[in-house]
Amino acid sequence: MDNHSVVLDGLFVALADPTRRAVIRRLGCGRASVGDLARDAPMTLPSFMKHVRMLESNGLIHTTKSGRVRTCELNRERLALVEDWLAQQRRIWTDRTDRLERFVTHPEENK
Amino acid sequence: MDNHSVVLDGLFVALADPTRRAVIRRLGCGRASVGDLARDAPMTLPSFMKHVRMLESNGLIHTTKSGRVRTCELNRERLALVEDWLAQQRRIWTDRTDRLERFVTHPEENK
Repeated sequence: MDNHSVVLDGLFVALADPTRRAVIRRLGCGRASVGDLARDAPMTLPSFMKHVRMLESNGLIHTTKSGRVRTCELNRERLALVEDWLAQQRRIWTDRTDRLERFVTHPEENK
Repeated sequence: MDNHSVVLDGLFVALADPTRRAVIRRLGCGRASVGDLARDAPMTLPSFMKHVRMLESNGLIHTTKSGRVRTCELNRERLALVEDWLAQQRRIWTDRTDRLERFVTHPEENK
């Protein structure tokens, strides 16, 4: 299995959780501290930190610590890998639909 | 947790596997039998069937059986839910970038 596939596996697993998706959504509006992010999550801080670490280990977010505050930032490039994969699938269907359409509208080309 | 969130959880889990993503990609080119799909997968047929069942239980594919042949078909609408979620995230960043740009280029509007 190539490295890109392993990366995609991790990204999809990381996105398969509502708490982690909520963090991604919130960080789309700008950086936020773990404390602020955790306030919206219905769980203890240690449980929330596991989600933060999972997002970070899969590269979806970066975190930096200054004093006692850990700040999180979205890594859009990583999310773009998921978008790219979906766009590839869409291209495959679209190409197929285009071919089918040509077959129906210009059958002489297929003789 | 709402139903849409549970559905997204399942879709992301289903996509977090190279065999299942290969099936999605292949079915983008058109329907295929389980036998044909399994031929490309480096595993036994029972192991491959688990992947097929997981894709079907999450609604990413439909399967129909005719005699001894089970045919699989992609359910693009389900994959579109994942695309929609990603598009929402992108809108959030884009809106924020637009606001930041207006703030920099037209600071008088922000007084």
